[in-house]
Amino acid sequence: MKLGNFVAGRWQEGNGQGRALRSAVDGQPVATIDSSGVDFAEVIAHARSVGGPNLSRLTFHERGDRLKALAQFLLQHKKEFYELSTRTGATRADSWIDIDGGISTLFVFSSKGRREMPNDVVYLDGPPEALSKNGSFVGQHVYTSRPGAAIHINAFNFPCWGMLEKLAPTLLAGVPAIVKPASSTAYLTELMVRRIIESGILPPGALQLICGGVGDLFEHLTCQDSIAFTGSKTTAEMLQAHPRVVSESVPFTAETDSLNASILGPDAVPGTPEFDLFVKEVTREMTSKAGQKCTAIRRIIAPSSVSADLVRALSDALGNIRIGDPASKDVDMGPLASHEQQREVRARVAELAQEAEIVYGGLDDFDLLDADPKLGSFFMPTLLHCEKPLRESAVHSTEAFGPVSTILTYDTLDEAVELARLGEGSLAGSIITNDDTVARELVLGTAAYHGRMLILNRHCAAESTGHGSPLPHLVHGGPGRAGGGEEMGGVRGVLHYMQRTALQGTPETLTNIGHRWIRGSEQKDPGVHPFRKTFEQLELGDTFVSESRTVTLDDIEHFANFTGDHFYAHMVEEDARRNPFFEGRVAHGYLIVSFAAGLFVDPDFGPVLANYGVDDLRFLQPLNAGDSLTVRLACKQKTLRGDTGYGEVRWDAEVTNQDDEIVAQYDVLTMVATNEHWNSVRNETT
Amino acid sequence: MKLGNFVAGRWQEGNGQGRALRSAVDGQPVATIDSSGVDFAEVIAHARSVGGPNLSRLTFHERGDRLKALAQFLLQHKKEFYELSTRTGATRADSWIDIDGGISTLFVFSSKGRREMPNDVVYLDGPPEALSKNGSFVGQHVYTSRPGAAIHINAFNFPCWGMLEKLAPTLLAGVPAIVKPASSTAYLTELMVRRIIESGILPPGALQLICGGVGDLFEHLTCQDSIAFTGSKTTAEMLQAHPRVVSESVPFTAETDSLNASILGPDAVPGTPEFDLFVKEVTREMTSKAGQKCTAIRRIIAPSSVSADLVRALSDALGNIRIGDPASKDVDMGPLASHEQQREVRARVAELAQEAEIVYGGLDDFDLLDADPKLGSFFMPTLLHCEKPLRESAVHSTEAFGPVSTILTYDTLDEAVELARLGEGSLAGSIITNDDTVARELVLGTAAYHGRMLILNRHCAAESTGHGSPLPHLVHGGPGRAGGGEEMGGVRGVLHYMQRTALQGTPETLTNIGHRWIRGSEQKDPGVHPFRKTFEQLELGDTFVSESRTVTLDDIEHFANFTGDHFYAHMVEEDARRNPFFEGRVAHGYLIVSFAAGLFVDPDFGPVLANYGVDDLRFLQPLNAGDSLTVRLACKQKTLRGDTGYGEVRWDAEVTNQDDEIVAQYDVLTMVATNEHWNSVRNETT
Repeated sequence: MKLGNFVAGRWQEGNGQGRALRSAVDGQPVATIDSSGVDFAEVIAHARSVGGPNLSRLTFHERGDRLKALAQFLLQHKKEFYELSTRTGATRADSWIDIDGGISTLFVFSSKGRREMPNDVVYLDGPPEALSKNGSFVGQHVYTSRPGAAIHINAFNFPCWGMLEKLAPTLLAGVPAIVKPASSTAYLTELMVRRIIESGILPPGALQLICGGVGDLFEHLTCQDSIAFTGSKTTAEMLQAHPRVVSESVPFTAETDSLNASILGPDAVPGTPEFDLFVKEVTREMTSKAGQKCTAIRRIIAPSSVSADLVRALSDALGNIRIGDPASKDVDMGPLASHEQQREVRARVAELAQEAEIVYGGLDDFDLLDADPKLGSFFMPTLLHCEKPLRESAVHSTEAFGPVSTILTYDTLDEAVELARLGEGSLAGSIITNDDTVARELVLGTAAYHGRMLILNRHCAAESTGHGSPLPHLVHGGPGRAGGGEEMGGVRGVLHYMQRTALQGTPETLTNIGHRWIRGSEQKDPGVHPFRKTFEQLELGDTFVSESRTVTLDDIEHFANFTGDHFYAHMVEEDARRNPFFEGRVAHGYLIVSFAAGLFVDPDFGPVLANYGVDDLRFLQPLNAGDSLTVRLACKQKTLRGDTGYGEVRWDAEVTNQDDEIVAQYDVLTMVATNEHWNSVRNETT
Repeated sequence: MKLGNFVAGRWQEGNGQGRALRSAVDGQPVATIDSSGVDFAEVIAHARSVGGPNLSRLTFHERGDRLKALAQFLLQHKKEFYELSTRTGATRADSWIDIDGGISTLFVFSSKGRREMPNDVVYLDGPPEALSKNGSFVGQHVYTSRPGAAIHINAFNFPCWGMLEKLAPTLLAGVPAIVKPASSTAYLTELMVRRIIESGILPPGALQLICGGVGDLFEHLTCQDSIAFTGSKTTAEMLQAHPRVVSESVPFTAETDSLNASILGPDAVPGTPEFDLFVKEVTREMTSKAGQKCTAIRRIIAPSSVSADLVRALSDALGNIRIGDPASKDVDMGPLASHEQQREVRARVAELAQEAEIVYGGLDDFDLLDADPKLGSFFMPTLLHCEKPLRESAVHSTEAFGPVSTILTYDTLDEAVELARLGEGSLAGSIITNDDTVARELVLGTAAYHGRMLILNRHCAAESTGHGSPLPHLVHGGPGRAGGGEEMGGVRGVLHYMQRTALQGTPETLTNIGHRWIRGSEQKDPGVHPFRKTFEQLELGDTFVSESRTVTLDDIEHFANFTGDHFYAHMVEEDARRNPFFEGRVAHGYLIVSFAAGLFVDPDFGPVLANYGVDDLRFLQPLNAGDSLTVRLACKQKTLRGDTGYGEVRWDAEVTNQDDEIVAQYDVLTMVATNEHWNSVRNETT
């Protein structure tokens, strides 16, 4: 099988012989890889001129819908992905992380996009900024899609997840992707891309695939393109220093090497649930995916007082791991990805052994299930133990990308912090303790060195996703050795593919650009009460100004008696006066908003369906008996909810007193029917 | 005068002869600069071991207090800064931007820090993320201070503002700074640093100053340090490629060259206020600070139909600019910073003149007020005109860092967008139009190429801060040629000096780390009603669970009649049923929160002073007549308000029905008295 490149809307095989890719299990050829003959100028031009426009004209919600459809489609095809995945050395559990884990990333980003981003193409970053005294000049930060391409360079260990975790935020950002998988497992990525393209769910140009070298691709990049790299720090440094990347300030993010640490708290002595959890977590991180995870635990930081117990417990647990053909149900751990990796890991273990003693594993000859050690690239789980780790360096800097980890002992929490920091930047760290004081001290001491940290104890163990699992909700990446990059983290990861810009202008202009009404913008007369208008009929700025109502002392007392809220500031003149904020009895805040609703609500059956909430309510001025209140309601933001028949309408509410002072400001959240829904409901009655 | 270096808590002069710095006005020596002999390992060690710990143990509010005190202190000393500033070539108006503008940055960051950040050392990024079904395992993103140093490398044009705009967010982040000003105007920075150190307001180690080369400083950097650079793209590229910066992934941000464009809308023809505003804006941007601003307008993008009028109007306006000794009140524009700059700008104009015609200025001989053209580095404002700008390149890539700008003409909006994009990334762009449709089209087409964009029209002109003014509230920086960096933007700029980390664990553990109570954490029994406790006595998690109250149809009708809110969903059974969300008449949302307050409020005079707002109120389940409600209130977050005698206490409120379904969730915001205040108020009565 010759892998295809998907470029400029067509499948194209390389011109040359290509390089053979071999099964990790038995060394048999699986496919050949070759990108020679690909016109990389055409690839990037296609992304910019076809993919970008196709994606960026969809709203965030529409893009989210595509991601969900794609996830559902891939779920239907997962059987063939699982089958091919065993050739990479993955057990069923490993494939679950790669395939189901990757697909779930699409689901989460779909959901985040539709719940946390607007049904629009501009993302608003924070509230407007007041920049002038009279309010004619304001600021608003926005994010817009970069009109370029995202180059994704992925690692060999997760051929599906590695593509999808980058693809989901990129597509949600409205940016087309050019995916380059690592060669050794590219055949699985290629299969998944074939299915994605066949589905027709993504718009043309949104996704291209390069199996093999990227030729002169980098020569064509501009500041509107971006690179997201996962792999070795050495390669990252080379790419980052590419003259074009430097001269164009091409946004570059990298996930690279990482000597991730897991710290056992001093409270977690043998016999505690936490000690057992630690042993289980370390064992799983060492052996899952044969330790070929950027986030795996490489450094086991434990109190010196328990290190003998720990060596014993971990050796026992590792001894129970069955190694062999990953297609076999009885096998817990498969081979490394290739013989090259096998040689590489062996060399790294030799380096580590200069500073640490091998206390388990490290043998070339060990039992295999249904597999031939000469054909497959198997590696025995190997545990090392370093007694004076503060004095050593290789144990903190040498990443053996396999089932290898080193115990480093500490005597004080300060030492544990110092050891964690010696990793010089990691993707993931963990702390196993049932003492939150210990947790806080270790987190504050080491968080700046980590992209993600897990604090594990008996209370969350059953639901914990584990040390090594990046989650689409949370950022993935880390400082220093880990590359200094960041991906995922929900909307955070989407924004990495967009440009933040501070806009300045009149409230009106910025309302017209960002589609969120800003105070000071035009207050339009909708002709009718805005509650008479359907979702489509409502325009931003449609405004209702109420009659005014005087609040009496009777009202306040009545409200108190009715609701039961007899708080002294409302009820006892003398006590209210002793309060630094009031000059006497004041109306309840809830009275103010209740009366305001009584003033702005249009009661008759109509397209406004429900008030589902209130945001950012602030009482800015006390309201005393005898004061009167008026409310101004303006249509602030509209978010259509797919084809449910309604959409969210956010109203800007402002309550003023008889002196035009602002008493309260807030957003009222309503659901409003669409034309279609409203017409159908209305017709049911007539 | 020999400039001092402030290192490791002491002033230290260079060992060598140093280099003479000369006045831009008359070429007379002002100072010598020299950092030879400085031990840069000591500098960075001092920042890490003294400055970092001193700053990071202060809360964001305490750091904000220091910034405010510093701003007030510097205001008192501004006379001597203004006096010295004239030697740099700055007019009084130029110095106002540099000195008062710089000080105001401190004020804004102080205010942002105290209003938008917690009174704590950990900054919470977003709400908790639900990661598990039963809620025992959640996520929370936090930012913590990097335990390293921030290296600030500043440009010559704004020796005060350039330092302060970087210093304010850095110190607020809890990170010590090492400031290296550009040599030619370093004497003014040095004077301001002397005053800052004398004030004693900043803790030891928070600020160090290097006047001259930075020697082997970069060799000592790690991933916890960072570099913020302002200057030429060439220098930025060199620094960014430093082996240590690359190998340690040292966070690096740069503001560099920028061919900023200002676009005149097609509606803004001669005779409109916008045409006149455009002429004024361009003239100011060309001549303010003699055009030596990274944000100045270098490319004037205008409809070809008005270009003749524009050349005339701009030539007239530039002809009125009086050039000479910046100390003279009659002078509008001073000299360039040095003869070197003068030669440099002259060379760049020659390059531009290959593609564009000089239509104003460009002469070596021109009138000066109170100044000698041979001694000072004066430069005549120079306007060029390019008729086929889409075919040219130098006009889009050559930055003449002086009073020089080029008119580029367009025929369609698409062409205007294309011309703006040819700048390949800018710090600031502007659009002058009174047509918001034009504004939206141009912004969506070009925002991704800009860090900041001003949309100027007649309505905001009086309050506009202008094309070229970065504001502390808004991000400053831009993609591509502009360096790909970002600074300021309020809290955004602070976070660039901190590390974002995703934490995972039990709600309880994350509450203990982030000091914001997360649902699922322990609900503590405070012994008394929590409204009886002072600010200090309250603990996160202190919980009150109310009695329950049944809501009757009478209650709903009574509430409707009392408030005037007769919305059909509450009043008309048949209409309510037609609503997709309800199965019959439902209670008002405001009734629910009012009754909830009646249930949770403890009425007697006490330390709780006021309810000042509500956040994130969501009605999750309709409440029908006959349902009952119970409310659970838990102390969620405490924010002491300096020495006002009170602090903000945020309560997590959850209203449930008789089936334990959640009816409503929200945050109640209260002001609560401190012990001291409460004791004094209570004693007044007894």
